Amino acid sequence: MAIKLGKNAYGKNAINLSKIIRHDDCHEFRQISVNVSLEGDFETAHTFGDNSRILPTDTQKNTVYALAKEYFTGSIEEFGIHLSKHFFSKNPQVSEVKIEIAEFCWKRMNFEGNPHTHSFVNGGNEKHTTIVQQNADGIYITSGIKDLLILKTTDSSFTNYIKDEYTTLKEADDRIFATECEASWEYSSDNLNFTEQYDQIRNLLLKTFADHKSLCVQQTLFEMGEKVLENYETVKEISLKMPNKHHILFNLEQFGIPNRNEIFIATDEPYGYITGTVIRD
Amino acid sequence: MAIKLGKNAYGKNAINLSKIIRHDDCHEFRQISVNVSLEGDFETAHTFGDNSRILPTDTQKNTVYALAKEYFTGSIEEFGIHLSKHFFSKNPQVSEVKIEIAEFCWKRMNFEGNPHTHSFVNGGNEKHTTIVQQNADGIYITSGIKDLLILKTTDSSFTNYIKDEYTTLKEADDRIFATECEASWEYSSDNLNFTEQYDQIRNLLLKTFADHKSLCVQQTLFEMGEKVLENYETVKEISLKMPNKHHILFNLEQFGIPNRNEIFIATDEPYGYITGTVIRD
Amino acid sequence: MAIKLGKNAYGKNAINLSKIIRHDDCHEFRQISVNVSLEGDFETAHTFGDNSRILPTDTQKNTVYALAKEYFTGSIEEFGIHLSKHFFSKNPQVSEVKIEIAEFCWKRMNFEGNPHTHSFVNGGNEKHTTIVQQNADGIYITSGIKDLLILKTTDSSFTNYIKDEYTTLKEADDRIFATECEASWEYSSDNLNFTEQYDQIRNLLLKTFADHKSLCVQQTLFEMGEKVLENYETVKEISLKMPNKHHILFNLEQFGIPNRNEIFIATDEPYGYITGTVIRD
Amino acid sequence: MAIKLGKNAYGKNAINLSKIIRHDDCHEFRQISVNVSLEGDFETAHTFGDNSRILPTDTQKNTVYALAKEYFTGSIEEFGIHLSKHFFSKNPQVSEVKIEIAEFCWKRMNFEGNPHTHSFVNGGNEKHTTIVQQNADGIYITSGIKDLLILKTTDSSFTNYIKDEYTTLKEADDRIFATECEASWEYSSDNLNFTEQYDQIRNLLLKTFADHKSLCVQQTLFEMGEKVLENYETVKEISLKMPNKHHILFNLEQFGIPNRNEIFIATDEPYGYITGTVIRD
Repeated sequence: MAIKLGKNAYGKNAINLSKIIRHDDCHEFRQISVNVSLEGDFETAHTFGDNSRILPTDTQKNTVYALAKEYFTGSIEEFGIHLSKHFFSKNPQVSEVKIEIAEFCWKRMNFEGNPHTHSFVNGGNEKHTTIVQQNADGIYITSGIKDLLILKTTDSSFTNYIKDEYTTLKEADDRIFATECEASWEYSSDNLNFTEQYDQIRNLLLKTFADHKSLCVQQTLFEMGEKVLENYETVKEISLKMPNKHHILFNLEQFGIPNRNEIFIATDEPYGYITGTVIRD
Repeated sequence: MAIKLGKNAYGKNAINLSKIIRHDDCHEFRQISVNVSLEGDFETAHTFGDNSRILPTDTQKNTVYALAKEYFTGSIEEFGIHLSKHFFSKNPQVSEVKIEIAEFCWKRMNFEGNPHTHSFVNGGNEKHTTIVQQNADGIYITSGIKDLLILKTTDSSFTNYIKDEYTTLKEADDRIFATECEASWEYSSDNLNFTEQYDQIRNLLLKTFADHKSLCVQQTLFEMGEKVLENYETVKEISLKMPNKHHILFNLEQFGIPNRNEIFIATDEPYGYITGTVIRD
Repeated sequence: MAIKLGKNAYGKNAINLSKIIRHDDCHEFRQISVNVSLEGDFETAHTFGDNSRILPTDTQKNTVYALAKEYFTGSIEEFGIHLSKHFFSKNPQVSEVKIEIAEFCWKRMNFEGNPHTHSFVNGGNEKHTTIVQQNADGIYITSGIKDLLILKTTDSSFTNYIKDEYTTLKEADDRIFATECEASWEYSSDNLNFTEQYDQIRNLLLKTFADHKSLCVQQTLFEMGEKVLENYETVKEISLKMPNKHHILFNLEQFGIPNRNEIFIATDEPYGYITGTVIRD
Repeated sequence: MAIKLGKNAYGKNAINLSKIIRHDDCHEFRQISVNVSLEGDFETAHTFGDNSRILPTDTQKNTVYALAKEYFTGSIEEFGIHLSKHFFSKNPQVSEVKIEIAEFCWKRMNFEGNPHTHSFVNGGNEKHTTIVQQNADGIYITSGIKDLLILKTTDSSFTNYIKDEYTTLKEADDRIFATECEASWEYSSDNLNFTEQYDQIRNLLLKTFADHKSLCVQQTLFEMGEKVLENYETVKEISLKMPNKHHILFNLEQFGIPNRNEIFIATDEPYGYITGTVIRD
């Protein structure tokens, strides 16, 4: 029984790039992290150390900086498409290019209602993401959001679940629902107003989370996905990951103090992890 | 020459507490991390394992949760003062109590101009901090801000510095100035509107950073401290730590592309680290 | 076009468990982190908030602690199998159970050649991992190693690669090869001496890395996988992830000092990322 | 009341440097992270943006790499002294230089008793540290260890502590004692065999921890410090930080299973934090 190479890929990760876009009256500041990954005819590199088909990851990195000057002017999706097309067209040995971009969130400072022309404050861990994949069949765009930490103080319950010999959890009519949400959705086209789509879908996800009367995390997750598919024909399917950031009621009663859902222990681990994809039939 | 115990302390760190404050028309959500540290007559614990003067760190933790119900209703400074007074008055063996609190930043969600009654999005790594110290002489409040990531795209230069045999840095008339600022200032009183003071001082620090024509990080640091002392008689002194989050110009010229301060490599390490205290004479 | 639930799962992650195994003459200490994940008939939880088929993640966590007393006595693979069988047999609504376990590395202290009976020092970030998956077709064991930071100072080169307009990398006849290796291999049986298999495969991976004359990372990756498949009939296939932890030659020549592969800048980002699976034909 | 500059400093942090030392029969590999910090006459930089006395942090970084070629051949303490003397002697405006170095732990691979000539595996988070400080009065060396994760499964108790209204902790005759120890000790000379001193003191700290019958963390901390001062006249004083990495007994009894100190929940937060300095009288 022979031994051989199976699925493989290589590329450069964490290409950290920032750009100042200089307008007449103000500056824009953008910061992204880019991953490049290539699949293709690389078998002889593995079996013989033949690098003649290998575009070095260092060159991939240089290429990202070089193309950013002209092509990173709008959405990360459009920049990803430019990068993908560059690597795909110049490298016949490559069967699939994957470009992943995460954009950090910088907010323009604002003093007494006046936006500052060139100063910014970081907007937190939340990132806008995209994955652009290109192969012989075409080009595919999956965008999303990650590290989005959201929380609601009510309209969340968890009751009527299975009880067995190891059950100690008490049913909760009213609990904190906190999650570090990650969502990613596949677009049906590579020619959209991606920035507008992102802003609207992000807002819809937040609003659905905020307004939902949640009977369990799964139900809220599905509702969030369903709303996006209902409202955006441009979205083929959406996946959500919703780790439960538990806030556990502290037992004040042992000290004779009532705790009417007021004081909680915030914990990181262990955590519930709920994932799901919402699709079109 | 005898061997003996020198300076020592003990306590509980990272007491992670969250609280829902339930108003008629909306909820507030607060999340803090509390450290308790005690100094005092603990020599026999060290030398004989005598725990009779040791208030366990587990009990310190319980106390923080128990007191939060009644006393964590306003500023973290006021809650810190309550905690400090509790430990100091109940434990005669304690010569100094130190309470450190960091408050996480949660922002109320807002849809089409309407603030949501009970849903929040995390506001990033920035934290409001306080250190309350109490001993026989009194009680001292040092508040601040940490993990405040700020950036300006211009009005920063660095020229006319020392050159020696190991100099390779080029003078910069116009560079990105980015820092993860940490500031802490000592108040002259334990009876202030701490929330208002904090909001105003934070805003002044940001505005000074944004508007300053910087010739070096040191100059901006001093200007930020000086402005706070000039405007707030309630502040005795202020310390600032300003690690330089370097954005390094990428060499596009090697590819025949001009880089007019547009494309940068964002790096974490190594980093310049500038610290200073601004005081009253 | 209807909208419906696609692939989904839920469970508890980061169940951090430690165990003392008390022998007559010494103690063993084990520390693991367990993830439980369930797939199955959970559609009504998503669509109606019906929790009647939901085994709470809190109960999953309790179950792991409860079963550890009797069943976590040997390899993490055997404990994973016990956990998997428990959840699969007790929950008819579940179509697939996935148990992931990572074991931390604690080394017994040793003084002048004498192993200590009950004291340990942490052995670093390296972890032994396993994934046990059970469904109607059977039970599948994929074990591995992660966060294994290894480095060789020579016998690694990188030459004869593609050059294009964005190439700046110089060919290297002799370079540092450092990687934070992650490997995972699927066993052909659920009835093996897993601890012995792991120790031997780990050693073979290290030895192959150490002795290989590397022409590129891909070649070393393939050689490591090939050796495992050649020597262990119990392994069906193996996947390796080898991020390149770059050590970049510092330009001492600019100061008139020769750098004969002696002084390097250690960098974390960006990093080359090479992955591959080695299979049987 | 005038406003003026108080204490201040600046420098470069996280200068990550690796070195291959090439012997005839094998290679050594060393990896360090260096911080440089300068105090001195920098007032006009703060008040006027006058950089004429500022040695850029970029140049500090270059200097560390340049001097490593000739001077980083033995202990980190000796390299730190060389760096310190360089900056102090060349910069009359500097009143104090502080060099901090942390050395990462790489272990030579060993196969069947044979040490490999050029391959290494990372030895974990533990780091050997030193701080070299130089001013007009002389040069001072404080070395230590950090991120040393150690644990004992018995010979640790905690009883007879204060009980109050918020006490819930049960007395423990036998508990796990785990800590991520940080120790730093000041040497009385800058002319010692620092590597030998470090290895011996590290071993003594571990052995004392392992063999101590602990009545509380404070007692073990003091014993560890006392033993170092008793055995090493070269050490003036020693400070220890011992955060308690709690392993909490899991309540198996609620499921009818006895837990004879076997199954624990490993937690990171909150954590007890015990610090102390042991001095000579």
